[in-house]
Amino acid sequence: MRIGLDVMGGDFAPDAIIEGAVDSLQHLPADDTLVLVGDENAILRKLSEMKVEPSLFEIVPTTQVIEMGDHPAKAFSQKKDSSIAVGYVMLKSNNLDGFCSAGNTGAMLVGASYTVNVIPGVLRPALAVVLPRIDNRQSVILDVGLNPDCKPDVLLQYGILGNIFAKYVLEEENPTIGLLNIGEEETKGNSTVKTAYELMKEYPGFNFVGNVEGNSLFQKTMPDVVVCDGFVGNTILKLGESFHHIYQQRGLKDSYFDMLDFENFGGTPIVGINANVVIGHGISKRKAIMNMVIRTREVAHANLAQKIKEAI
Amino acid sequence: MRIGLDVMGGDFAPDAIIEGAVDSLQHLPADDTLVLVGDENAILRKLSEMKVEPSLFEIVPTTQVIEMGDHPAKAFSQKKDSSIAVGYVMLKSNNLDGFCSAGNTGAMLVGASYTVNVIPGVLRPALAVVLPRIDNRQSVILDVGLNPDCKPDVLLQYGILGNIFAKYVLEEENPTIGLLNIGEEETKGNSTVKTAYELMKEYPGFNFVGNVEGNSLFQKTMPDVVVCDGFVGNTILKLGESFHHIYQQRGLKDSYFDMLDFENFGGTPIVGINANVVIGHGISKRKAIMNMVIRTREVAHANLAQKIKEAI
Repeated sequence: MRIGLDVMGGDFAPDAIIEGAVDSLQHLPADDTLVLVGDENAILRKLSEMKVEPSLFEIVPTTQVIEMGDHPAKAFSQKKDSSIAVGYVMLKSNNLDGFCSAGNTGAMLVGASYTVNVIPGVLRPALAVVLPRIDNRQSVILDVGLNPDCKPDVLLQYGILGNIFAKYVLEEENPTIGLLNIGEEETKGNSTVKTAYELMKEYPGFNFVGNVEGNSLFQKTMPDVVVCDGFVGNTILKLGESFHHIYQQRGLKDSYFDMLDFENFGGTPIVGINANVVIGHGISKRKAIMNMVIRTREVAHANLAQKIKEAI
Repeated sequence: MRIGLDVMGGDFAPDAIIEGAVDSLQHLPADDTLVLVGDENAILRKLSEMKVEPSLFEIVPTTQVIEMGDHPAKAFSQKKDSSIAVGYVMLKSNNLDGFCSAGNTGAMLVGASYTVNVIPGVLRPALAVVLPRIDNRQSVILDVGLNPDCKPDVLLQYGILGNIFAKYVLEEENPTIGLLNIGEEETKGNSTVKTAYELMKEYPGFNFVGNVEGNSLFQKTMPDVVVCDGFVGNTILKLGESFHHIYQQRGLKDSYFDMLDFENFGGTPIVGINANVVIGHGISKRKAIMNMVIRTREVAHANLAQKIKEAI
């Protein structure tokens, strides 16, 4: 496996990114290569400061940076030697098995759509996030922000994409698929979700368990895959952030609530494109970056993109 | 003020309802009357068991019960001597200033629409909930479940209704109004919310502060009023329930997280109908019922229904 990491992206780049890269090494198999894409001098300086041998990595030097505030499409097309643009070119030429960045999310999405492209048959790609449940297992929820307007057939397909994700990335043999709704009954919800329910119920290719409500999220009763539109999914993710923030502010200590820190989530894989790509939170520090690299390796190891291509 | 309480509604009725009624008395002004609507024998038996003087209440005896599983519209029209139906008749004849129940939510909504009616000019009534912020202030969020499909003009009007709620029930002089969205920028969100943003920005009658994201909820940065459709609002409320449940399961202790218990929320007022009505959670016990009665008194004291009638 060759995993690429954008060293220039994120509020704390490049230092925190390089620190996270170093920490991630011990979680990667010895024959994997972690490819650091970015300013070579900055990388070498930081590694030397950390007394880490640069030969543990492959370094791909770039000269430009897409800043967090840059216009995504413009920056992506104009800054051809930026770490994000170079990462995508490497993905496209199969020179990387996976790529991740905590940088400009818009530019990462532009690269996803215009360089590696959406998998034919995928209606709309999604952002997925893996959440820890109280029973020490994991569930994936999608979409968490890419498509705030979702048609019923898109929600059905998110079930299909989520099923593949849970099977191959989370290694669940027969994942349960739930539809986020505001009641358990089939007749609940808005018109989109009601139609999606019908489609998902009839779909023979996954183990649909019906509606799931907000009070099941994070609980033992949470299905392995939760399908929702990007508006609701994004709100769920950010509300989790708010609760975790309050937990921290109040000085509470608990191993489960500690896990609910976004730094543990490993970023959000883009599901439905021709490459294994993970986007990190802009405010990612050392630990979040380490987990993002690990997640990217998981997704690349499962070869999520290929599995989806075969299934769609 | 005459506040009516449905003694027969809720999973733990009538005992827990009567216990909550007794506890609420000390929070009501001496010249208020708490009207217990339900099975007279059950009420008298329980009060005697609690050694509470029945004359502290007014009792309106009823002989029928709308069960939690009853079909709302059928039950409401057929069980004319049920506590819910009788409560609504009393509201309509101005024999009550407010009414609340933890019983069959559907039947409560049927009564709202068909007995006391929607206020002319109100497009769609909403369910509101008052949430405690980390800065010890309160915000109201609406809708939390009545309208999972909201048009932009309905969201605008929820801003207007929420503004009145915050002014008169929460006693905020110049409430801030926010629109729940998935980004701060004006161009974020789904098409409904984008249009709602334009409408709310142009509306001169309230203090619109723009988009509010999930990670501001419960925080100091949360506006006094948060507007969203009933799908997202319901998910927010139930996700809060899930986090509170985890907090309890983990045996944590914190005064703020304690407040996030639904038992403290005081139920969800129906906003936009010709009467002051509050709906409680079916699983309400003693404390939740007490708080529901207090909330109903607050809403009735503010005469929310009348204030909305004057404003719309």
